[in-house]
Amino acid sequence: MPAKARTDRNTATRERILDAAERLFAEHGVHEVSNRQVAEAAGQGNTAVVGYHFGTKADLVRAIVRRHTGAIEAAREEMVGRVAGSDDLRDWLDCLVRPTFDHMGTLGTPSWYARFGAQVMTDPALREILVDEHLGSPFLVRILDGLHACLPSLPPAVFRERGDVARHLLVHVPVERERALAEGAPTTRATWADTATGLVDVLVGVWLAPVTTTPDHETTDQERP
Amino acid sequence: MPAKARTDRNTATRERILDAAERLFAEHGVHEVSNRQVAEAAGQGNTAVVGYHFGTKADLVRAIVRRHTGAIEAAREEMVGRVAGSDDLRDWLDCLVRPTFDHMGTLGTPSWYARFGAQVMTDPALREILVDEHLGSPFLVRILDGLHACLPSLPPAVFRERGDVARHLLVHVPVERERALAEGAPTTRATWADTATGLVDVLVGVWLAPVTTTPDHETTDQERP
Repeated sequence: MPAKARTDRNTATRERILDAAERLFAEHGVHEVSNRQVAEAAGQGNTAVVGYHFGTKADLVRAIVRRHTGAIEAAREEMVGRVAGSDDLRDWLDCLVRPTFDHMGTLGTPSWYARFGAQVMTDPALREILVDEHLGSPFLVRILDGLHACLPSLPPAVFRERGDVARHLLVHVPVERERALAEGAPTTRATWADTATGLVDVLVGVWLAPVTTTPDHETTDQERP
Repeated sequence: MPAKARTDRNTATRERILDAAERLFAEHGVHEVSNRQVAEAAGQGNTAVVGYHFGTKADLVRAIVRRHTGAIEAAREEMVGRVAGSDDLRDWLDCLVRPTFDHMGTLGTPSWYARFGAQVMTDPALREILVDEHLGSPFLVRILDGLHACLPSLPPAVFRERGDVARHLLVHVPVERERALAEGAPTTRATWADTATGLVDVLVGVWLAPVTTTPDHETTDQERP
């Protein structure tokens, strides 16, 4: 077989494996799915093919994540560049929410990436991969700097706690919408873009919420300076 | 064997099965765990014992939920009675958050109930059981009425959307804390009660957040009057 044809066939096989793995991991959880099941769902007779193309399960998870982060991070870079220097909380929250939601809107129905991401987040080791690839983005650091500049007097521990709340909603609002679309169930908003608008509203409220500090909470401020 | 001893042994077996099922479902997902695995983890040689005591998997999930809802709902009833007629948003959000978080605080470490609940919420049929047993509580209806009375001008679709956001956080903030405690990882607040305080702050912000309506969103107001 000529080298070009072999490369094309390899690429097609890799894509089929990534599609099958993303769906199976989303439906059943990463640890509940074997390489054999992925290979079978990808229509591959040789179950060693998954290991051959992707190495460990962590490598496979990273390859799935990377199929999506390119488009998301390019959009985020563009938006962050546009709002640089803004002291409007909403600008920075748009940068946080919209690139991901817009990407989800391009995937069609059913999609699996939101549910795949939620499954990955439940595992400490695999979560690090998502953190590296998504949350470790230099643009995300600039968004956090932007939020800090808008909220200079928010205690650091409260800032972190609200970052955790934002992360929960950035994972689970898309999961719920993706699942509803896949099941043909009603959704609260018509489009991914409108859903992003609703979530940005909510996150403005989260960041501007009242602050009741509790004794220990303040002492943990030193954890991450 | 005398009837009393047989009843005691039955009760002990049922408790062991519920403990094992709650943990396994939390770790692996309800559909990934078989009755055989539950029976083995509960130290039962006869794998038919799970079906014998609990019927279907849905019945088993309901029995696990009911071990917890008694204490939570009793606390919620007491709190709702105390704040009746209040027009302070925070009073109603305390009723929403604190009974569950206080109950989590009584379970010790590691606990599994938060993670079990998150797994159950991913399945449409099983989610109905949680909705029946927790969210269908008459006290929850009174809390929603209380929130409505505090926010009379919030569009119904936005009210629903923020209810969904509150539900996500009521599931996933405890999941993250439960997992961190189980793994010996750092937590943002020292106690479940302090974590509840932080979440009530956040939810005050969520309900009072700005409202940007999108075209379709308003037309869906008729869905649930």
